[in-house]
Amino acid sequence: MRRPWILDYDSANCAIGAAVDILGERPSFLVLREAFNGVRRFDDMQRRTGLPRQVLRKVPYRENGQRSRDEYRLTDKGLDLYPVLVALMEWGDTHAVGPAGPQVLLQHRDCGEPVRLELSCAAGHVLESPREVTVVPGPGARKIA
Amino acid sequence: MRRPWILDYDSANCAIGAAVDILGERPSFLVLREAFNGVRRFDDMQRRTGLPRQVLRKVPYRENGQRSRDEYRLTDKGLDLYPVLVALMEWGDTHAVGPAGPQVLLQHRDCGEPVRLELSCAAGHVLESPREVTVVPGPGARKIA
Repeated sequence: MRRPWILDYDSANCAIGAAVDILGERPSFLVLREAFNGVRRFDDMQRRTGLPRQVLRKVPYRENGQRSRDEYRLTDKGLDLYPVLVALMEWGDTHAVGPAGPQVLLQHRDCGEPVRLELSCAAGHVLESPREVTVVPGPGARKIA
Repeated sequence: MRRPWILDYDSANCAIGAAVDILGERPSFLVLREAFNGVRRFDDMQRRTGLPRQVLRKVPYRENGQRSRDEYRLTDKGLDLYPVLVALMEWGDTHAVGPAGPQVLLQHRDCGEPVRLELSCAAGHVLESPREVTVVPGPGARKIA
């Protein structure tokens, strides 16, 4: 077995580790799920998940003459997490939900067709398996001294 | 603001929650990162991450007449997590790594072009934003009594 090149490189602070450090708590994912599903009121968020995080921004709102309250919207950083949530959902739908099937379905707003993540390359090829991917050192790779 | 339909449904045991319950610890993600990068020896895994998990299967190996040892391979369940890792990596590359840039780059093995995740629908449309997705109740949705 060939020794993987990755072993010659420092694994500290990789993008995945850094992302998980920021996101790594269950409440974060659940808050994001709710935010992507349109849930914005702090009370609803708290009841359905846990605490909000820095991926959410507060926006004041007022309704029916009530006192002003805050609702939560995704920041751009939060919006960029959508593929993480969809990937978790697809995995969960396949490996973690019961026989009743998925709780939610994603549809393309324009045409109504089911939405899913695809791995594709800049040349337009759709990849069927992780085995079709090669991992090479990027500009930020640091060789172990 | 219209009340999101999702509030009428039970949020317990959704696919994302169930996936995070299984995957939700930093070591899991890091072990998967190593496994996808070809790292298989228990010693290497342990040094670079933490402990392995049920997404890995043990395979015995023997090298240069040494005693038999175990290496770790991804199970099918583990392989199916690849999009989660790629999504985390893409997010981390954008929002969490330093100015040096990405540590690793993904390339299509066949053509060498950069690989990325795309959100597309069954009709073949590529979606540019989460705002192009509509979420509807699936067969497993449970209305709150």
